[in-house]
Amino acid sequence: MKFESDRILFVGDMAGALVFAMEGANTAINWDLDLLGMMVLAFATALGGGLVRDLLIGDVPPMCLRKWRYAAVAFSGAAIIFFLHHLVTKIPPNLILVLDTAGLSLFAIAGTEKALLHNMHPFIAVLLGTVTAVGGGTIRDLFLARVPRVLVTDVYATAALVGAVVMVLGRKVRLSPALAALCGGAVCFLLRVISVWQHWNLPKVSSH
Amino acid sequence: MKFESDRILFVGDMAGALVFAMEGANTAINWDLDLLGMMVLAFATALGGGLVRDLLIGDVPPMCLRKWRYAAVAFSGAAIIFFLHHLVTKIPPNLILVLDTAGLSLFAIAGTEKALLHNMHPFIAVLLGTVTAVGGGTIRDLFLARVPRVLVTDVYATAALVGAVVMVLGRKVRLSPALAALCGGAVCFLLRVISVWQHWNLPKVSSH
Amino acid sequence: MKFESDRILFVGDMAGALVFAMEGANTAINWDLDLLGMMVLAFATALGGGLVRDLLIGDVPPMCLRKWRYAAVAFSGAAIIFFLHHLVTKIPPNLILVLDTAGLSLFAIAGTEKALLHNMHPFIAVLLGTVTAVGGGTIRDLFLARVPRVLVTDVYATAALVGAVVMVLGRKVRLSPALAALCGGAVCFLLRVISVWQHWNLPKVSSH
Repeated sequence: MKFESDRILFVGDMAGALVFAMEGANTAINWDLDLLGMMVLAFATALGGGLVRDLLIGDVPPMCLRKWRYAAVAFSGAAIIFFLHHLVTKIPPNLILVLDTAGLSLFAIAGTEKALLHNMHPFIAVLLGTVTAVGGGTIRDLFLARVPRVLVTDVYATAALVGAVVMVLGRKVRLSPALAALCGGAVCFLLRVISVWQHWNLPKVSSH
Repeated sequence: MKFESDRILFVGDMAGALVFAMEGANTAINWDLDLLGMMVLAFATALGGGLVRDLLIGDVPPMCLRKWRYAAVAFSGAAIIFFLHHLVTKIPPNLILVLDTAGLSLFAIAGTEKALLHNMHPFIAVLLGTVTAVGGGTIRDLFLARVPRVLVTDVYATAALVGAVVMVLGRKVRLSPALAALCGGAVCFLLRVISVWQHWNLPKVSSH
Repeated sequence: MKFESDRILFVGDMAGALVFAMEGANTAINWDLDLLGMMVLAFATALGGGLVRDLLIGDVPPMCLRKWRYAAVAFSGAAIIFFLHHLVTKIPPNLILVLDTAGLSLFAIAGTEKALLHNMHPFIAVLLGTVTAVGGGTIRDLFLARVPRVLVTDVYATAALVGAVVMVLGRKVRLSPALAALCGGAVCFLLRVISVWQHWNLPKVSSH
């Protein structure tokens, strides 16, 4: 079961990292940053969430600095965008939404899994799963000196949060770790896609 | 005496956290953020200072993630603002100043206390007490992509710093920990309130 | 050899910290911040890079909080600027460039050295050396709510990165640690100075 958990973490982290790295590098181009800026934003977007999670649970050095593969994946994502940017602009927005949401779901699941492995309280594990999923994009936005998208856009962090809750509840009712993770990931994915399609938003308090 | 220290830390952290969480959630409303944004800013404002302090002294996972009560207090503060926002707008500004300054004093004292418990040099403990007091508001402002209020507003961090110094000096002259904390907190509180009332400011170098 | 490494770390950290602290304090004046703002930006610029490096390699509390000398150097830099600002404005820009680049080189070398001492993979040690060199300025810019200069200016972080690579390669070919550090530092210094003089820039992808 330890082995299974490790594989969930590893596959989720790697696949999600590549997608997020490409998005970070693409953002750098839109902001007219140079190659170094692309590498920094690719690294931050891809690995920032897991890095913050690892600092917070006390697993230092963070996984993304303990194994050079993580940084290699992030910089590969930047290189793909650098050399093939003209192809990337032709990817239909719906496919980008699907890939990004897949990355979000993978990170939310992997982050919650790791927090539980480190004996965090399930309530806190849910928060850490969410931080893993949206932390990279938040750090990217801090570097760009703008309010993190996750605070102003529709149902994004909320989908990660709900997916993490479903995963934790799944384990409470004795689903296998893999099945609980699958359920959580599916809920995160569907909630995000449906909310974009249906223009769902969270409630607000009017400041007037 | 260990027991006494722990209680100072606990009461200070909890009471200060509730006040700061409500302020953070209120800021989110002024920035037109949704319920998730309120929860994030409440958590960051209430627990960010202590979280940074704990990371820096190496007490990980940080207290606010080790006990679910902290996050529960922060989110309760957000919920109070979410449901009772219309009442909160009627609180007189002077009362808000008093409550905020009380939170500042409690956090400065609790942070200094914890740094001393972890055998930090008294000079560094003073810095960490100040970080505990103003770190949450600073992280909130980073999320809002604005220069932290603490860097541009009157005597705020300075009050926390002076309060922490008084507390450390109090212990040097053999006051009991509780009495030293009380003196430090009182000095922080009074310095902040008087400086708002008298429009005190720190000296500046003119850039012309 | 351990002793030699420690001295490289110590001298680099102290000398670089004073230069960077004065730059941070000077930036605070340009932004019309008060004495506290000067102290905060001096501390962040001087010690932020090493602090982040130490958090990431798990050496906590970070060196700059374990020895009070670091904070003392940072605040001394702020005091020098506070009292002698009129003299500082008369320093020729070329001298400032040289001093800043010296600080950059010292930090890049000291950071890479420390990461290697903590058994980080050489590829990761290079990244951590770069973070040490440019992390302080990045944190200063986050506090000022602007995109970090290092992401938008010419060859700056890149010089640190290349210097760190040279140092690591030097050790691979069995240069003594001191000689490898010297080579890395010299390459970083020259690359930065020449690139300013020749207006070198990194390649970019056009977003059109």
